[in-house]
Amino acid sequence: MFRKLASFEEAKKIIEQNFPPKPVGVEQVPLSEAHGRTLAKDMVATTDVPPFNRSTVDGYAVKASDTFGAEEDQPTTLRLCGQVAVGEYPRVIVEVGKAAEIVTGAPLPKGADAVVMMEHTNRRDNTIFVHRPVSQGENVMKAGSDIQKGQTVLQAGQRLSPKHIGVLAALGLTEVKVYGQPRVAVVSTGEEIVEPGKPLPPGKIYDINAPTLSAAVLECGGKPINLGIVPDEKDQLKSALGGALNMADVVITSGGVSVGPRDLLPLVLNELGEPGVLFSGVAIKPGKPLTFAVVNGKPVFSLPGHPTSSLLTFHLFVRPILYRMAGKREQATPTLRAVAASKIFPARGRRTFVMVNLTRDKSGRLLASPVPLGLSGAITTLAKAEGFIQIPENQQFIDEGSEVTVHLFEEKSNSVLDRSH
Amino acid sequence: MFRKLASFEEAKKIIEQNFPPKPVGVEQVPLSEAHGRTLAKDMVATTDVPPFNRSTVDGYAVKASDTFGAEEDQPTTLRLCGQVAVGEYPRVIVEVGKAAEIVTGAPLPKGADAVVMMEHTNRRDNTIFVHRPVSQGENVMKAGSDIQKGQTVLQAGQRLSPKHIGVLAALGLTEVKVYGQPRVAVVSTGEEIVEPGKPLPPGKIYDINAPTLSAAVLECGGKPINLGIVPDEKDQLKSALGGALNMADVVITSGGVSVGPRDLLPLVLNELGEPGVLFSGVAIKPGKPLTFAVVNGKPVFSLPGHPTSSLLTFHLFVRPILYRMAGKREQATPTLRAVAASKIFPARGRRTFVMVNLTRDKSGRLLASPVPLGLSGAITTLAKAEGFIQIPENQQFIDEGSEVTVHLFEEKSNSVLDRSH
Repeated sequence: MFRKLASFEEAKKIIEQNFPPKPVGVEQVPLSEAHGRTLAKDMVATTDVPPFNRSTVDGYAVKASDTFGAEEDQPTTLRLCGQVAVGEYPRVIVEVGKAAEIVTGAPLPKGADAVVMMEHTNRRDNTIFVHRPVSQGENVMKAGSDIQKGQTVLQAGQRLSPKHIGVLAALGLTEVKVYGQPRVAVVSTGEEIVEPGKPLPPGKIYDINAPTLSAAVLECGGKPINLGIVPDEKDQLKSALGGALNMADVVITSGGVSVGPRDLLPLVLNELGEPGVLFSGVAIKPGKPLTFAVVNGKPVFSLPGHPTSSLLTFHLFVRPILYRMAGKREQATPTLRAVAASKIFPARGRRTFVMVNLTRDKSGRLLASPVPLGLSGAITTLAKAEGFIQIPENQQFIDEGSEVTVHLFEEKSNSVLDRSH
Repeated sequence: MFRKLASFEEAKKIIEQNFPPKPVGVEQVPLSEAHGRTLAKDMVATTDVPPFNRSTVDGYAVKASDTFGAEEDQPTTLRLCGQVAVGEYPRVIVEVGKAAEIVTGAPLPKGADAVVMMEHTNRRDNTIFVHRPVSQGENVMKAGSDIQKGQTVLQAGQRLSPKHIGVLAALGLTEVKVYGQPRVAVVSTGEEIVEPGKPLPPGKIYDINAPTLSAAVLECGGKPINLGIVPDEKDQLKSALGGALNMADVVITSGGVSVGPRDLLPLVLNELGEPGVLFSGVAIKPGKPLTFAVVNGKPVFSLPGHPTSSLLTFHLFVRPILYRMAGKREQATPTLRAVAASKIFPARGRRTFVMVNLTRDKSGRLLASPVPLGLSGAITTLAKAEGFIQIPENQQFIDEGSEVTVHLFEEKSNSVLDRSH
C-alpha cells in the first residue's frame, strides 16, 4: 500500500495493472431493446441485400443491347411480354425484342439486364417505343450491392444507434448479441448523512452522492445497485462492503476516506480480501482522498465525500473502467477545445481540475470560464459546471486566452455548443 | 391540400400551424429513474442547503474576535469547552475565551463564528494555543450558502443528468415531476417488405424502417409502438391507421407514398378525419414523397420507403416535434462546423441534403466528406453517414474547402470529434 500520495499518473497505472478491465459478459437482446447498447461481436452478413436485382425506377425491364441506337425521334420498338409488381417473383422472361413493365423496387425478371424509365418510352397497345438507350445494369440495384453476403457490416464495440439497428433489420435479424452491463454497488458512508425522503434531524444533511453516482453509473452503461448509507462503524461497514462485493462487479463508496479517526474504510477493505488497498490519496485537487482497492478480483473505488470531488473522481477514474467493462470503445469523456476566459492558477504540486462552464464570445469562440469552487461541499457548483480542464503538476498557470481542452461531464449536446449555424 | 410540391420552409410552416406541439403530460418518477428525463416544473428549494453553518475543516470553533492579534510566536490562548462531531447537534456553547474541537462537516456550535484550522493550533491539556487569527465566517460554510430556501435551483425543461439529480437529492427529494414521453405508432407499408425474423419469400426484402424509426423515437425521448407491416390495401390500411391514431400521440408511416397506383395513404388519411392531408410531397432531395396529415388533432407523418430518405425526413420533420412534445428545450439535432472535403452539387430547385462523414485533416480541421448516396435504397449508405449538410434551393454548389454546418444523426460523442487533445 502507498504511504505517500500517488500521483495522478501513478494512480491510473496502479488501477490498470491491478484491474485491467474486461467486458463483463454478453447477452442477447431483441432489436427493440438494442438501441444504445454495444455490439458484442462482428456482424457478418448471411445474405445479400438486396437479395435480388431490383429496379430503381418505374419503367420497362429490357435487354440493354435491344435499346442500343434508340433516339428521341428514332425509337426502338419492343414488344410487351408481361408485368412485374413489387414483392412478387417475376414469372415472365424477357427475351430479345421484348420488354416487361416494372415498378420501382420490383425484382428484375430473367433475361432483362436494365430498365428504361417510363418517361423515355411511349406505348401503343403492346408495343413499347424506347426513345433512349440504356446500358447494362442501368436503373438496377444489383443483388448484394448494398450488403454482400460474407461482408462484415458492423464491428464489435459499435454503439447501436437507429441506423445500425436498420442494418441488422436489413439482414432479417430480430435479436442481437450485446455486451452486458457491469453491476455497480454504490454505498455512501458518513455519520452526518441521511437518505433523501427521510426527516432531517438537526446536524444532518441529505446524502447527495448515492443518487448522483447511481445516475452516473447508468450514464456509463452500468447497472447501479444503490445500497444507500452505511454507518461509519467497522462491523456494519465490513458486512455492507462484503455484501456489495458479492452482488456487484464494481463497488463505489463515497465519504469516510478523509483524514480522521473514523476513517475505517481502508482498514475494512484490507480485511475483506487480497490485495486490498493499493493507494489511499492521490495528488490531485479536488479529490485527494481517493482510495482504490482490489478485493478478490473486484475493484473498489472509495471516493471523497464532497459531491464535486466525488463526481469528478468518478469521471477521472471510474468512468473509463466502466466503459471498458461495458465493452464500449468510445472515449469515456468527450472533450472539446476552448479558450480560457481568465487566468487560472492550479494548486501547487497537485494535478488541478478546474470546473468550467462554456459560453461563446461575439466572434463565436468557445470560452471556458472557471466556476468558483466556493466551498467544496457545494452541489450547486457542480450543477453549474459543464466540464473541467486539467492543469499539470508542473504548470504555473493557464493564461487568459490560451487554448484548453475541456472534458465534458455530459455526453448530450449542449445548447452553447449547438449555436454554430 | 397542396397539389404542387411544398417547399421545405412551407412544409415546416404548415406543420407548425396545424400542429403546434405541446408537452404530452407530466409524470412523477423516482429519482433513480429520472436520469435523462426532462424536468417538468421549476424546482424551488424548500430548505436551506446546508441547513446549518458547517465547519469546512478540522480544528477549533471559536469567536473570531478572540483570535485577533494571534501570531506564530505569540499565540492567543483559549480554553477547550467541548467537542463537536459530525451528524450531531452541538450542545456546547462557545463563550468568550473558549474553543470547541470540531471536525470537517460538523455544525458550528452556538457562540462560535469561525473555525481555526487544527494545524494553526497547539494544545496542552485543555489549553488551545492559536497561532493565526481568523476572520468572522472563516472556514465556515454558511447555512443556505449552497442553496437558499426559496431559490429556483433547476428550471422546467432541464434534461436531468447526474449532477441535477444531486441537486434534487440535496433537497431531500426522492421523486421528481418530469414530462411524459410521447407515444409514437410506427407503421411500415409495402407489398415487398417482410418483418425481420420471418422467412424471406422470393421477390421480398426485410423491413428496415419500422425497427430503425422505433429506435429513432426512443432516442428522441418518445415511446415507440412498433405496429409492423400493414399491407397496401385500403381497408387494412384504414383500420391499422385508425387503431394507431387511437393508441398513440403521433403516427409515423413509411413507404407507400411514392407516385404509383397503390399509393392509398393520402386517400385513407383524408377519410380518417379532419383536416386530413396538408401536403403531399416536398421539394427536398432525398425525401420528396414526404406527406403530412393531421387527423382529429393528431399528426401523421408519412415518410418515404427508402431507409435513408425515411430517417432523414424523420430527423428534419419529426424529431423537432417529438422533442417539444417531450418537453425538451435542447436543439433536436446537434450541429457542428466543418469544411467541405470536395465540391458538392445540389439537385436543381430542391433543398438538397447530403450525407457526410467526418474526418480530421493533418492540421486538425474537421472535414465533411459526402457519402456517395449510391442507390437510395441502400441502408449501408446511411450507416456510414455521421450527419448531413443542407444546400439551399438557390445555391449552385458548395465549394471544396468552404465552411459547412453538419447536422449530426447521433447525439452521442463521436470518436473523431473527441480527438481534440
